[in-house]
Amino acid sequence: MFFASDNSSGVPVEIMAALSRANEGYARSYGTDDIMARVTARIRAIFEAPEAAIHLTATGTAANALALATLTPPWGAIFCHRHAHIAEDECGAPEFFTHGAKLALIDGPHGKITPAALTEALATTGASGVHGVQRGALSLTNVTEAGTIYTPAEIATLTAIAKQHNLPCHLDGARFANALVATGATPAEMTWKAGIDALSFGGTKNGLLGVEAVILFDPAKSWELELRRKRGGHLFSKHRFLSAQMEAYLQDDLWLRLAARANAMGQRLSQGIANLNGAALTHPGEANMVFANWEEGGHARLQAAGAIYYDLRPTKEGRETARMVASWNTTEDHVDRFLAALAT
Amino acid sequence: MFFASDNSSGVPVEIMAALSRANEGYARSYGTDDIMARVTARIRAIFEAPEAAIHLTATGTAANALALATLTPPWGAIFCHRHAHIAEDECGAPEFFTHGAKLALIDGPHGKITPAALTEALATTGASGVHGVQRGALSLTNVTEAGTIYTPAEIATLTAIAKQHNLPCHLDGARFANALVATGATPAEMTWKAGIDALSFGGTKNGLLGVEAVILFDPAKSWELELRRKRGGHLFSKHRFLSAQMEAYLQDDLWLRLAARANAMGQRLSQGIANLNGAALTHPGEANMVFANWEEGGHARLQAAGAIYYDLRPTKEGRETARMVASWNTTEDHVDRFLAALAT
Amino acid sequence: MFFASDNSSGVPVEIMAALSRANEGYARSYGTDDIMARVTARIRAIFEAPEAAIHLTATGTAANALALATLTPPWGAIFCHRHAHIAEDECGAPEFFTHGAKLALIDGPHGKITPAALTEALATTGASGVHGVQRGALSLTNVTEAGTIYTPAEIATLTAIAKQHNLPCHLDGARFANALVATGATPAEMTWKAGIDALSFGGTKNGLLGVEAVILFDPAKSWELELRRKRGGHLFSKHRFLSAQMEAYLQDDLWLRLAARANAMGQRLSQGIANLNGAALTHPGEANMVFANWEEGGHARLQAAGAIYYDLRPTKEGRETARMVASWNTTEDHVDRFLAALAT
Amino acid sequence: MFFASDNSSGVPVEIMAALSRANEGYARSYGTDDIMARVTARIRAIFEAPEAAIHLTATGTAANALALATLTPPWGAIFCHRHAHIAEDECGAPEFFTHGAKLALIDGPHGKITPAALTEALATTGASGVHGVQRGALSLTNVTEAGTIYTPAEIATLTAIAKQHNLPCHLDGARFANALVATGATPAEMTWKAGIDALSFGGTKNGLLGVEAVILFDPAKSWELELRRKRGGHLFSKHRFLSAQMEAYLQDDLWLRLAARANAMGQRLSQGIANLNGAALTHPGEANMVFANWEEGGHARLQAAGAIYYDLRPTKEGRETARMVASWNTTEDHVDRFLAALAT
Repeated sequence: MFFASDNSSGVPVEIMAALSRANEGYARSYGTDDIMARVTARIRAIFEAPEAAIHLTATGTAANALALATLTPPWGAIFCHRHAHIAEDECGAPEFFTHGAKLALIDGPHGKITPAALTEALATTGASGVHGVQRGALSLTNVTEAGTIYTPAEIATLTAIAKQHNLPCHLDGARFANALVATGATPAEMTWKAGIDALSFGGTKNGLLGVEAVILFDPAKSWELELRRKRGGHLFSKHRFLSAQMEAYLQDDLWLRLAARANAMGQRLSQGIANLNGAALTHPGEANMVFANWEEGGHARLQAAGAIYYDLRPTKEGRETARMVASWNTTEDHVDRFLAALAT
Repeated sequence: MFFASDNSSGVPVEIMAALSRANEGYARSYGTDDIMARVTARIRAIFEAPEAAIHLTATGTAANALALATLTPPWGAIFCHRHAHIAEDECGAPEFFTHGAKLALIDGPHGKITPAALTEALATTGASGVHGVQRGALSLTNVTEAGTIYTPAEIATLTAIAKQHNLPCHLDGARFANALVATGATPAEMTWKAGIDALSFGGTKNGLLGVEAVILFDPAKSWELELRRKRGGHLFSKHRFLSAQMEAYLQDDLWLRLAARANAMGQRLSQGIANLNGAALTHPGEANMVFANWEEGGHARLQAAGAIYYDLRPTKEGRETARMVASWNTTEDHVDRFLAALAT
Repeated sequence: MFFASDNSSGVPVEIMAALSRANEGYARSYGTDDIMARVTARIRAIFEAPEAAIHLTATGTAANALALATLTPPWGAIFCHRHAHIAEDECGAPEFFTHGAKLALIDGPHGKITPAALTEALATTGASGVHGVQRGALSLTNVTEAGTIYTPAEIATLTAIAKQHNLPCHLDGARFANALVATGATPAEMTWKAGIDALSFGGTKNGLLGVEAVILFDPAKSWELELRRKRGGHLFSKHRFLSAQMEAYLQDDLWLRLAARANAMGQRLSQGIANLNGAALTHPGEANMVFANWEEGGHARLQAAGAIYYDLRPTKEGRETARMVASWNTTEDHVDRFLAALAT
Repeated sequence: MFFASDNSSGVPVEIMAALSRANEGYARSYGTDDIMARVTARIRAIFEAPEAAIHLTATGTAANALALATLTPPWGAIFCHRHAHIAEDECGAPEFFTHGAKLALIDGPHGKITPAALTEALATTGASGVHGVQRGALSLTNVTEAGTIYTPAEIATLTAIAKQHNLPCHLDGARFANALVATGATPAEMTWKAGIDALSFGGTKNGLLGVEAVILFDPAKSWELELRRKRGGHLFSKHRFLSAQMEAYLQDDLWLRLAARANAMGQRLSQGIANLNGAALTHPGEANMVFANWEEGGHARLQAAGAIYYDLRPTKEGRETARMVASWNTTEDHVDRFLAALAT
């Protein structure tokens, strides 16, 4: 019953097999390997973006920080949700890579920014000339940190507001596959067709050892990103081992099948909790993450049964609160045992 | 005939096997995995340093930059050889991670800093009070970028000079195993017993997919390094896959056996070149790297034979110059065919 | 009727005379001038802080940013009011000088942080281990950006909460003299006796051409601040001209007399507005700044009469809103004409 | 006998008078004062550069660092002389403001870069693709740190080499007026007509309390520089006091008259030393700085006579070495007494 995070899971056999294949022989280093050439072509095809620049990193924090640094000057404000991963979970990596840009935090229910809140934030930040920081970029997350989903239309609405101020738009897609599966959108619809300029395309949480891709739909800053990646210590000498993971991930829709599995298990858990007496969903469970709260005692029963998940700060009313994440290898048995333990 | 770099090679079967084993089941993320606990104990034992702090990274640039940032304030000067990897091959990563420290470049034959040159550099940099940068740290590389070796006694002489100014001392050990094998020194003799405070302990060039360890012999700044690693995007969620590589690397002296093989092939190549008419070693070939020059025409013959290596700027006299690196899986056949092609 | 800012005023004759005296003959440069030695002694005496380190800068932004960079590592969070000058009016200077620290913004009525809000902010920021930024420092402003005042007891309450987390505490005293005059507190009571570790001691807004002092009550980081100041381009070669301004400012309580005058004019304006039909104070006017709102039409009448001040965003109800600042040379006539124009 | 530095002198009466005039009445702050508008127009006229962007700072270090940060990305190399002020005397300010750019130091006799040395430096730095830093900018100093002069033709030769790599070119003109007077060149000939893109136009060493101008001959990055200036704490609220100094400096050629006086005294000192037995000029004394060496005993005699200057590291042969700087208010009597004391 491991629901702590999708990064507690290992990787499917297809990925290990790809690593073994990539290990044969010599290969050019630092991203000039043959596999990477195929990966670039494949991602461009999947995203219907024949000019896009693709750069691999090994962590999501690196992908986000490099993308944002490329989009925003040091005196820029990055508009994002108060609970965005870039704001809460990266120990200031965006500030480090951007050389001191400011995150302008926007409140919003269920991890989502509303058009009204974005409009208000843009009206108050970057409006004081040289005295304050300038408007820099918009950064959204999909699947959000609250486990909810932006539809392509919602993303397009927000990016359109940002682009009234000429802001570039970034999407943290650590769980991008899960968002696609949940909405049925195509990769292009969820990104550049909806106004996204740079995507952190996640793989690690969805079955890789550690690979993400930064996708710049406008390749003009590709060389800058390349230099920032090297300077950040994120250019791998034996890069083929990153390329190989990503290639296998995209082969035969593996990435979508893994996400579909995780989402299905997340839904099963969400619905199960919603049906329990005394338990409730904190946020709508739209993908593979489930936020819930319940009456006192649930934690004790679950821990006694061996369930692993995050217990969060209780509500003001004293209800226990938790986050559970289903993974590509979560089983129905795990979900059902979790629900059983919580139920009584 | 691949001699371009030791990072063109893949990894030995022991490493792939360790990855597969590590892939089983769930594991705690972000460096709290059980394997890492064993790695820490093992490295401490190998280095006879029971208090040392160990942090893994996936690239050598990250290891160096994080170590240096922890040792040096932004207004410090890092004394290093003019051709140090940190000076020439990291696109300014030390400057990025230290927030603008300056590299004070020291000339010296065959990639090595002499005591006299270090003394002179320390006398002229950091001697002008608030107007100039302050003396920050000493950084040595072993095996050096010229393929030569510092003995522990040579390192101790240099660190003693640095410590007259209370400078912390860093060792870039991207090829640390090769240096040990070449000298017969123990890990402790080559590091803390010789005045080294922080070591970039390389694995990637010697047979890993991508793992290095930063070893702080004084653990006082371990937490600071941990935060810098996270902030730099270098803390892996599925950290077990780094730990597993390092564990297998250290198992049954695999790391030393791999380096011994690479060094033996480097020696074979060095001696072969030294015996050729019209060819000469540019630097003494003391480990697995060989720098040589030869009369015009050598490049053409080697390339025709399919040899892969770096051709460098020719000498003023017009002699062709090259760098060849032997790897853990270089074969005697490769070496001999290289020599044959060059000889004709 | 100049109420735009206290920095629209020039300087009193005593200051110009001091500059002329300082101009005679040769002087040692870069802060080693004789006048600075006297300034240091004088500030230490005024603050009853015989060990304090004193460094002059020419702008308040420099003073704040240098102080904060000395107190906070790059991965620290600086807790401050949402409308703090360091958050809204310095174009990210704190982020620049700290190399990317984050400002944790705290809401609170009338520009002041409440103990409950600070406690909550400290509970949620810096509580997620390596994943989030760490708690770095507390920064208060007195007089606040809303023209209100913290009493020494209020400051002591807030710093005591911060010090439960071992946080150093900074006070932005751009209008420090005005705060002292308004409360009757001594400099020591308002600062180190109330838990303040570093003070930006303002002079520019209160009658100098451009001089502030950073006062570190614990001098341990004085040399670090000295290096940061130089590195930031804020160490003046002809430093005597800064020293001379500060010396004259402190002579015969000039600084307190100037602030008393400004506060008196601020009070006169506050009370006048409070007595007007249709006008109201937005914040209590406790020193020399006045925030007010009034029915539509006030702006037009004031501007027709030649009044200079800041018009702010109107309230949701459509009331016009404004900020007026009285200066050391504001006259009763100016205040009364302003009130007359608004009243009609 | 003050020859320590031109920043040990005060300012001429014209400057103090201008400050007094500027002190009258209210003025808009933060660089929007009326005087600044006139200064901008005047500098554009003097430099025959009607589009140039002009920004004032209070220190030369700020001017240099802001200019360089605007010209160079963090991963750029700034090519400069080994003994450039930006390399030796600013405590790393260029690295701080550029966020970690690297200074590529070039040796050359008498403080000057030769075309051959620049060509060689450009061939070896920035030539390794993503692995090394990129070529960023060229920075020259005139008058050089060795007291020598680049003619406009020499500058044009160097900038032409740099522009083969599309590098922007910066001139540190802390003693720009002295260089003009020494060569008879016009401001335009010495700068944009010779390929200079950004000038640090010094005032402080030549008679101001503390004002320099950054001049961008291409104004495209003016707003970026404005933001960097604010963010660096270098935008003055009571900016009129900077503007007023600069206006008076340029009035009736005061700046050139002051420099002519300093140069004349420097020449008198140079020629006097050259004529003394046992003394010699270390560098040609072409403006107001004099570098000389003499037999042991000179320091003792000069100090006994009360002379103030910098004693530098003695030569290997044991000759005493010194730097003397004449200022706008150095008198013939001072020079002659210095020579008499040294002569005995």
